Amino acid sequence: MTSMRKQKSKLNFVQSLPSPNSFGEDTLLIHDKVLIKANSHFASWAHQFTAIYPVKAGESLKNLDYFPHHMKKLVQLSHSYNPRLLTLVVAGGGSVGDFGGFIASILKRGVRLVHIPTTWLAALDSSHGGKTALNVSQGKNQIGTFYPADEIYIVHKILHSQPKSRALEACGELAKIALIDQSKLQGKSWVDQLEVTQGTPQQLLSRFLKQAIASKYRVVHKDPYEQIGHRQILNLGHTLGHVLESFMKLPHGIAVAQGIFFALDWSLKLDLLSKENHSRALNLIKNKLCLFPLNNTPKFKNKRPSVQNARAILLQDKKRKGCHEVTFIFLKDFGKPIRKTVLVDQLIEEAYSQGWIG
Amino acid sequence: MTSMRKQKSKLNFVQSLPSPNSFGEDTLLIHDKVLIKANSHFASWAHQFTAIYPVKAGESLKNLDYFPHHMKKLVQLSHSYNPRLLTLVVAGGGSVGDFGGFIASILKRGVRLVHIPTTWLAALDSSHGGKTALNVSQGKNQIGTFYPADEIYIVHKILHSQPKSRALEACGELAKIALIDQSKLQGKSWVDQLEVTQGTPQQLLSRFLKQAIASKYRVVHKDPYEQIGHRQILNLGHTLGHVLESFMKLPHGIAVAQGIFFALDWSLKLDLLSKENHSRALNLIKNKLCLFPLNNTPKFKNKRPSVQNARAILLQDKKRKGCHEVTFIFLKDFGKPIRKTVLVDQLIEEAYSQGWIG
Repeated sequence: MTSMRKQKSKLNFVQSLPSPNSFGEDTLLIHDKVLIKANSHFASWAHQFTAIYPVKAGESLKNLDYFPHHMKKLVQLSHSYNPRLLTLVVAGGGSVGDFGGFIASILKRGVRLVHIPTTWLAALDSSHGGKTALNVSQGKNQIGTFYPADEIYIVHKILHSQPKSRALEACGELAKIALIDQSKLQGKSWVDQLEVTQGTPQQLLSRFLKQAIASKYRVVHKDPYEQIGHRQILNLGHTLGHVLESFMKLPHGIAVAQGIFFALDWSLKLDLLSKENHSRALNLIKNKLCLFPLNNTPKFKNKRPSVQNARAILLQDKKRKGCHEVTFIFLKDFGKPIRKTVLVDQLIEEAYSQGWIG
Repeated sequence: MTSMRKQKSKLNFVQSLPSPNSFGEDTLLIHDKVLIKANSHFASWAHQFTAIYPVKAGESLKNLDYFPHHMKKLVQLSHSYNPRLLTLVVAGGGSVGDFGGFIASILKRGVRLVHIPTTWLAALDSSHGGKTALNVSQGKNQIGTFYPADEIYIVHKILHSQPKSRALEACGELAKIALIDQSKLQGKSWVDQLEVTQGTPQQLLSRFLKQAIASKYRVVHKDPYEQIGHRQILNLGHTLGHVLESFMKLPHGIAVAQGIFFALDWSLKLDLLSKENHSRALNLIKNKLCLFPLNNTPKFKNKRPSVQNARAILLQDKKRKGCHEVTFIFLKDFGKPIRKTVLVDQLIEEAYSQGWIG
């Protein structure tokens, strides 16, 4: 093929939701239905669209079994529109974005996609980089596409109307970016900057959102289709994080934060990371981002996955005859993540010794 | 995005089916199950794959309702394979190719795809250009992707083992290419070449297959995602063809041939096409490719769609408030198709006056 479908997503940082008219006549809105009740600014905005498809957010939205039902409704809703001009506006958090992005990528072989992330986590992470996904049986994100949105709107009014607990969920991803990105802003590294900035997690998110998004794009643009491996550094904290998220139903961001604690401790133990930087990283995550390791709390211990549970989840996507390995992201220094192939058995042993699994 | 997923498909013209080992260990074969019974060369080849998914060809394979069932089975079958190395080999005609191509484009966000078209029509047309599709309710190809195969094998032994009637079905698309492509081979135009070549339709297909495929790629490469309109010239004969295919269940290639007769007559009537070239085109299609207009046969008249039927099918994808238009491909000269916007009412009137609908 000699030309490309999509270039970079256009990012818009705005105060309020953009006018529905700005998307053209042939526009369909998919949104998290909770927003209508929870947010009057959103409700009055959504009602201006002529075609609306409210959905219940969460992993069940991404369940393949319900996909034909959704797709039929969406084809019906967009029936009277010109497929060449059709725009899908997707407003919601991670699951709504994964679902809506997938729909946009296959409806009429691909229509214009606008993401309006309505959670800090989606605004910071999941709405960027083009990954869309559905779940197949128990397997998460087994099918999907790489389909970057044409435009992404980061809406101040929407993000700041969220409860504080949702901000905390994004802090795990913010910590990840701060640890892996080596770029400097005004001569300062991410860690240096965060250490001297005062504020609540929500204030820090708001202050560093633009910078964190730019960091993610720098990684994604080097490896948009996850073909050369570079994009995997974004998985820092996600290997164990995924196990805890799956088994304990922890929110994604909280689970990722736990995975980062695990990766930092393991990196220290293997003499990859200095004692000093290990302490600085821990302090940052705890004191600035208000995220704490749960592995020594009694509540966690009661609910944590067993060695068998962990193995089953880890091998779910990786199983291969005689070759039980995963790529694990360690931290060597701030801005210096390293990818290493480890045996699933090694990973399990380390997680057990740190008390993450029991 | 700064890099692309796919470049051009690699074309391989071979005598026999390629060795299953050549695709690597992590290979899954999707094939038309009829081939096992119909073709012993195919059967002994297919049995060498460790993961096989036989399907029943036809439009029901592309039915969205059955998609979760297929997808679960396919995820299960490929479970023990490395997703980064996974290759999907798809052997069959148009419907199997559309289905398998779609699966390949979304499984693990896209795996390696090898097409082995087993009908003349798929070898000449549908396996090239990257269009994949499923049907949603009554709407054909409502969802899909642009996902060119990494490799396509055109296998002499397979194509030549088909019954003659299947060759005829590909001749409609061969006629289309011959009429719209302006490139010359050894100083001769397509029409000039065909006129002086002797042989059965199957011999002509075999003789001109490579050239016809190259013609299609020239069009596709100028407009791979159907964004600038150029690719629409490949729709010569397809507007009315689609109506007849949908309503009368005519084979695709036969329906397209009827649509070409319609487009040629309309082009003549509008003084776009000269009387001489109109005659030459008709002679070519009838005498060389053994395809004949059915509109004056009693059998056709008994089964043809009514004006209402035709309108419903034509508006299915195009309906838009106050704007009932379609892009129709006329022929001005050999190698000179032209795209014109016509009212659905005009199209219907012309089809009625030519006796295609009643």
